Amino acid sequence: MTTTPRQLRLGAYFTGAGVQGDSWRHPAAHTDAYRNFDRYKEYAQKLEAACFDALFFYDNVFAASDATTVSTAPLSPRWDPLVLVAALALVTQRIGLVATVSTSYSEPYNVARHFASLDHLSQGRVGWNIVTSTAGGENFNLPAHRDHAERYARAHEFVDVVTGLWDSWADDAFLENKASGQWADPAKLHLLHHVGQHFRVKGPLNAPRPVQGWPVLCQAGSSEAGKNLAARVGELLYTAAQDIDEARDFYRDVKARAVRYGRSPEQIHILPGVMPVIGRTHAEANAKFAELLAYRDTDVQLRALSSYASLGVDLTGLSPSDRVPLPEHIPETNAHKSRQKLLVDWIRHERPTVQQLLTRWSAGGHRMLVGTPQSIADDFAHWFHTGACDGFNVMFSSTPGGLDDFVELVVPELQRRGLFRTAYTGHTLREHLGLPRPAFPAQPAQPQPLAA
Amino acid sequence: MTTTPRQLRLGAYFTGAGVQGDSWRHPAAHTDAYRNFDRYKEYAQKLEAACFDALFFYDNVFAASDATTVSTAPLSPRWDPLVLVAALALVTQRIGLVATVSTSYSEPYNVARHFASLDHLSQGRVGWNIVTSTAGGENFNLPAHRDHAERYARAHEFVDVVTGLWDSWADDAFLENKASGQWADPAKLHLLHHVGQHFRVKGPLNAPRPVQGWPVLCQAGSSEAGKNLAARVGELLYTAAQDIDEARDFYRDVKARAVRYGRSPEQIHILPGVMPVIGRTHAEANAKFAELLAYRDTDVQLRALSSYASLGVDLTGLSPSDRVPLPEHIPETNAHKSRQKLLVDWIRHERPTVQQLLTRWSAGGHRMLVGTPQSIADDFAHWFHTGACDGFNVMFSSTPGGLDDFVELVVPELQRRGLFRTAYTGHTLREHLGLPRPAFPAQPAQPQPLAA
Repeated sequence: MTTTPRQLRLGAYFTGAGVQGDSWRHPAAHTDAYRNFDRYKEYAQKLEAACFDALFFYDNVFAASDATTVSTAPLSPRWDPLVLVAALALVTQRIGLVATVSTSYSEPYNVARHFASLDHLSQGRVGWNIVTSTAGGENFNLPAHRDHAERYARAHEFVDVVTGLWDSWADDAFLENKASGQWADPAKLHLLHHVGQHFRVKGPLNAPRPVQGWPVLCQAGSSEAGKNLAARVGELLYTAAQDIDEARDFYRDVKARAVRYGRSPEQIHILPGVMPVIGRTHAEANAKFAELLAYRDTDVQLRALSSYASLGVDLTGLSPSDRVPLPEHIPETNAHKSRQKLLVDWIRHERPTVQQLLTRWSAGGHRMLVGTPQSIADDFAHWFHTGACDGFNVMFSSTPGGLDDFVELVVPELQRRGLFRTAYTGHTLREHLGLPRPAFPAQPAQPQPLAA
Repeated sequence: MTTTPRQLRLGAYFTGAGVQGDSWRHPAAHTDAYRNFDRYKEYAQKLEAACFDALFFYDNVFAASDATTVSTAPLSPRWDPLVLVAALALVTQRIGLVATVSTSYSEPYNVARHFASLDHLSQGRVGWNIVTSTAGGENFNLPAHRDHAERYARAHEFVDVVTGLWDSWADDAFLENKASGQWADPAKLHLLHHVGQHFRVKGPLNAPRPVQGWPVLCQAGSSEAGKNLAARVGELLYTAAQDIDEARDFYRDVKARAVRYGRSPEQIHILPGVMPVIGRTHAEANAKFAELLAYRDTDVQLRALSSYASLGVDLTGLSPSDRVPLPEHIPETNAHKSRQKLLVDWIRHERPTVQQLLTRWSAGGHRMLVGTPQSIADDFAHWFHTGACDGFNVMFSSTPGGLDDFVELVVPELQRRGLFRTAYTGHTLREHLGLPRPAFPAQPAQPQPLAA
């Protein structure tokens, strides 16, 4: 779009729940963000002042109900991301706002409407994080979670229906011509008439085409099915990579798949998650990290880890210095397939202690980066310039502390190096990301599953 | 709640679309409200300054696609009411905000979350207008609209699931106790475990209990099934009544049904729709009404009327002075059953001309009230004091003109007479309406269909 050298894309990751980074017991941590909108307003305004591309809300459609988890895990209550994004659109002007909505437990007509309205409200700043969910069937008339393969087949079709509905009306369909009495031009109406395996949707959508044509399509699955969905339709990808080789493999793999779907690799921005812990010196950073870990409860962390990624080993009752037993039989999982594999491979290779496993897991499977603004900027630059990513999805180790550290210390260092913008040049999220606005009607994504 | 004499409840009706009152061709009418949030912000702030109880967004889940309707009817594009209400929550402080969401084409878990979040965002000011929709099956994997009886059976169960999910967590379930490490109290968790005819939902909701306990339950159906739903769960009812006897019959009927469901009649506020056209003199009011009608296209109105309420007579090609043919065979309709009956009864009784029918229909089946602030206040007082209503749902003949006239001329007259508040005394919509906050867990509504 411009002649500026390629720069980092920065996203910010939020749970939408009461706490970030599991460090809710830290004395300075906010715990009420799940019910106090002013917290998210503050975070969003700080990130916008730092010129972030977008902030992003994770979501799920269930809550744990066992007494232990309820007592100790600060994640049960959360905002509806659609409501939070609508509200944030009114207290920000430029930053992108990405809401997660599940394709497994929603209807495409409703989802298309939600995002069309959000895109008009925000004047072109929203993205849809497309997820198939990791659980929730018990709240949606099913005996259990939908099967992994069915979820992804449904997701492909769901996205096609939503994008097709966004293209119901040309950008200039509504004339509002008082003199002639012509409200809209019927030649600029496109009826979807979708009939597929999972959905039958006639259209048209009862909403004008979004400001961005299509809100930005975001995606985070890293299983084979997830990568194919990402390669076929994703524009902004949130990934997990613990080391640079793994990140480079993923980057090459997904961009190559995208090319086989007829897309340009520049149309996909890949942002691995990273949780920085920042000090003005390495000693200060290490001390902050130790303090964060000290506010976590080992038993709580072990239970959370066991329930999130079935490792096939029993961790309960182990002490921090014990070596993690080698997983023998890896249970089949219907969620977080790629995270499970990452962790099992790492345990087999490294033979860590329980403490080392928990430290590695302390960003929920994402990479911890403990250092100074300079060392973190060095790391970012290295990943960025050597084919590992297009930017980062930054997870804050606590709020407001971890967020303040990042925007006050790391962002200026990235800006000094020319790695990150010092002012927004565009107004829409597509413009921030250098993504084209889809023509009307947009070229449909190639429908066939990828032949490897 | 207070010792103030009983006062009118005033709601404001909005389509969420580009135009109010079908008078979009009037030179002063806004036509861009469907895409320009500043319009609704202006309306909401004016209504809040006038101390309205609530504003309410009508909704549907389809758009007409025939060339004639697309060309002439200004109603296809509309806001998602959830997005609009979230945004309005940030630019208002006291007024209630009511969003329509269909029980026929949504999932209760998603709907419960939307409103729980909206209620926290607005600090207790939202209501849910429960509708079964008048069309839309073709956009939700069905060959046609759901059947009327099935819609209402589903609606009863849907409401029970949503209210049950709102009661997942006691008001004080989340402790956020950093010192002890206790996040929440598992004894304050209530698992729904709903298994019914239409839904299986385990719970818990992943949202804290709404500020109001339950957002206010609003409802508008006037068929037999609609009145039973209203009597069993409704708290704020939007109705259509063209004359006071009809309104009194409805009022008595629904409040008596409510008593048979074990409810107090004071727990239900009944607000007939009314569209005032206001002049400082009767001559000015009549001139404004004539001007509004002049900006409407007879053919467009006839088509809209024919498609909205199947009358069993062919109106196309008739001229304004022709008498409306007597309906012989009244077609069975799957939508707007009560509106169809009202209109057919009136045609049989009055033998109107086409012009008279269109004039009557000019508020979409609601009552037109053309007069001065004094005559309108007289009418309101008469209805209010003689058992016809608890207030009115005001539909504006145009925006901004009709809205400005009402808040500048009629509201002060109502306030002078002590019929309407001059300042808010409460903060939540329940407080505005004098409705109790449901205890936790709330007493479930009596489940059985009413025996007449």
